[in-house]
Amino acid sequence: MVYEQEPFNAEPPRTALAERLRTPLDTFYCRNHGPVPVLTPAEWRLSVDGMVERPLELSLDQLRHRFEEAEVAATLQCAGNRRADLVEVRDIPGEAPWGPGVTSSATFRGVRLADVLAAAGLTPEAAHIAFVAPDIAPAADPPQPYGGSIPVSKALQPEVLLAWAMNDRPLPRIHGAPLRVVVPGWIGARSVKWLTRVTAQATPSDNYFQATAYRILPAEADPGQAGPAEGISLGPIALNCAILRPDDNTHLPAGPTGITGYALAGEERTVARVDVSADGGDSWVQADLDRAASPWLWQHWRTILDLPPGEVEVAARAWDSTGALMPASPADLWNPKGYANNSWARIRLTCS
Amino acid sequence: MVYEQEPFNAEPPRTALAERLRTPLDTFYCRNHGPVPVLTPAEWRLSVDGMVERPLELSLDQLRHRFEEAEVAATLQCAGNRRADLVEVRDIPGEAPWGPGVTSSATFRGVRLADVLAAAGLTPEAAHIAFVAPDIAPAADPPQPYGGSIPVSKALQPEVLLAWAMNDRPLPRIHGAPLRVVVPGWIGARSVKWLTRVTAQATPSDNYFQATAYRILPAEADPGQAGPAEGISLGPIALNCAILRPDDNTHLPAGPTGITGYALAGEERTVARVDVSADGGDSWVQADLDRAASPWLWQHWRTILDLPPGEVEVAARAWDSTGALMPASPADLWNPKGYANNSWARIRLTCS
Repeated sequence: MVYEQEPFNAEPPRTALAERLRTPLDTFYCRNHGPVPVLTPAEWRLSVDGMVERPLELSLDQLRHRFEEAEVAATLQCAGNRRADLVEVRDIPGEAPWGPGVTSSATFRGVRLADVLAAAGLTPEAAHIAFVAPDIAPAADPPQPYGGSIPVSKALQPEVLLAWAMNDRPLPRIHGAPLRVVVPGWIGARSVKWLTRVTAQATPSDNYFQATAYRILPAEADPGQAGPAEGISLGPIALNCAILRPDDNTHLPAGPTGITGYALAGEERTVARVDVSADGGDSWVQADLDRAASPWLWQHWRTILDLPPGEVEVAARAWDSTGALMPASPADLWNPKGYANNSWARIRLTCS
Repeated sequence: MVYEQEPFNAEPPRTALAERLRTPLDTFYCRNHGPVPVLTPAEWRLSVDGMVERPLELSLDQLRHRFEEAEVAATLQCAGNRRADLVEVRDIPGEAPWGPGVTSSATFRGVRLADVLAAAGLTPEAAHIAFVAPDIAPAADPPQPYGGSIPVSKALQPEVLLAWAMNDRPLPRIHGAPLRVVVPGWIGARSVKWLTRVTAQATPSDNYFQATAYRILPAEADPGQAGPAEGISLGPIALNCAILRPDDNTHLPAGPTGITGYALAGEERTVARVDVSADGGDSWVQADLDRAASPWLWQHWRTILDLPPGEVEVAARAWDSTGALMPASPADLWNPKGYANNSWARIRLTCS
């Protein structure tokens, strides 16, 4: 489902994500803020600068040979995932009405950001690591290259990679070749593609996509008027789940029906339980939940519900390993830019 | 408000907690599962054993002199906090109908658990640190000394203390003298009082209060039949908030009225925003939220609402630093033992 051709923004259908621990490269969601930059790998260099003792300028070959190779299986999720349910509450102009498919999983291979930062030598004042890419984002005010940052505490974790391969294939251009950041457990916006510069600094990035966008504003705020640092800056992704099969708004026979989906919890947490309801949330059964194959991957779940004839609303909700539960209603979570909807997942079926 | 004399279980009224960053010792909540043990400080010893290279037996003097003194300001919260709202949904026999007052804050002083474990030398297989106290809990099945455990990853954090002082006073007997564990950010049940033994082991404690109690069971489970390891084991406390002033079920004049309360977020997170509603949750205003004075302390908040004459429901809800929001309804969170209620806080007022 392509929402925009330029910048290219597309989401796989639910059923293409179902039952697969890793998402094929041609199915993995695409979220872009500018045109895909044309980078020549032989000329491409990564600059590592800012609050470091030894600024670096690295070719792809130098990155590959100077640092130990590392791999992480991770689910990436756009902060606008499931925005469609918020749009049903109240329109969100200028933002794609994403379903639950801007969530995909892959094995990424590259080097640890921590190793590159160690080679550069962070100075004690360095508190944030900023990323910059050459894709100019017209939606930014003013238009500027895409960027963002993560705190040093996260940047030094072994799961944060600078990756050149995805599912054992060279990283496709649309997914950030020659090199992208992969920040497992954090909103996809921080996994900057087409990376050219890593800067250690005392404060978060002042790039539009860190300072102004990707923030939960209060419902009454005018997003056109919001300045930097307003609202809640998004970082670790929220506990969430989705129903992948059957698809939303489908007709199917009444009777015992397999229901499957994904669930994931952010930073430091795992999914502990998924409940599924055939009556819109009045009564629940526990789904069979896969064990986490990696701390950074979604967990799939499945159950069989006996669906009655007629209009049926199937709902799903997840609990995390601390006992936290997803909120019930998208209306409570509505925010002007439509981020971080983790209300109970719902699909509507007609059974006969 | 004393719920039981033996074991002694008591909760301060909301207004005694209001506006105070630290809770006076005689106001701090008391949650006990057995009679307060009689320990003679001169004879008391702490055993450190299990998967360690050098088992230790330490007197209070040895603890004080062998290790660096450390202090932490922390909010402790019982996992049954706000159970009263769950009891209104459906009865929870045998458990105290706690309000929001089994949450209190103090400065604790003692030594870091990490330093004591370093002196004993954890072996590589040690994955959990178990605590035991001599208070026999008749509610356990079978009756047994109170105990629990935390993962090594938490036990080694600098905020986890073995404490002998509270708010610059010797630790009172009711709060665990001569020595208690303080595990900031985790349910109070893990901050074991009257500590006598610390055991490094490969698996979590098999004590009743770790293996069977303090778990979120599915709503349909029979807690009398629940065996060890069922449900979601509680550890880090959930994002939560409460209204402290005015008190619930009070009469007061209509018009502009100050509303205050606390909010807190678990492990690794802080409170980012508190919304308050004078119409039961249909519309919200943002409260003024104090900055976190310590990562382990609650944050107080306040606002002024223009209360209309008649019956008024005031509601409050918190968002954490990752953008997560508290669930709206206690009915969704109801569980057979009544733990971890973090639905929106609500009080009922009559204004005239």
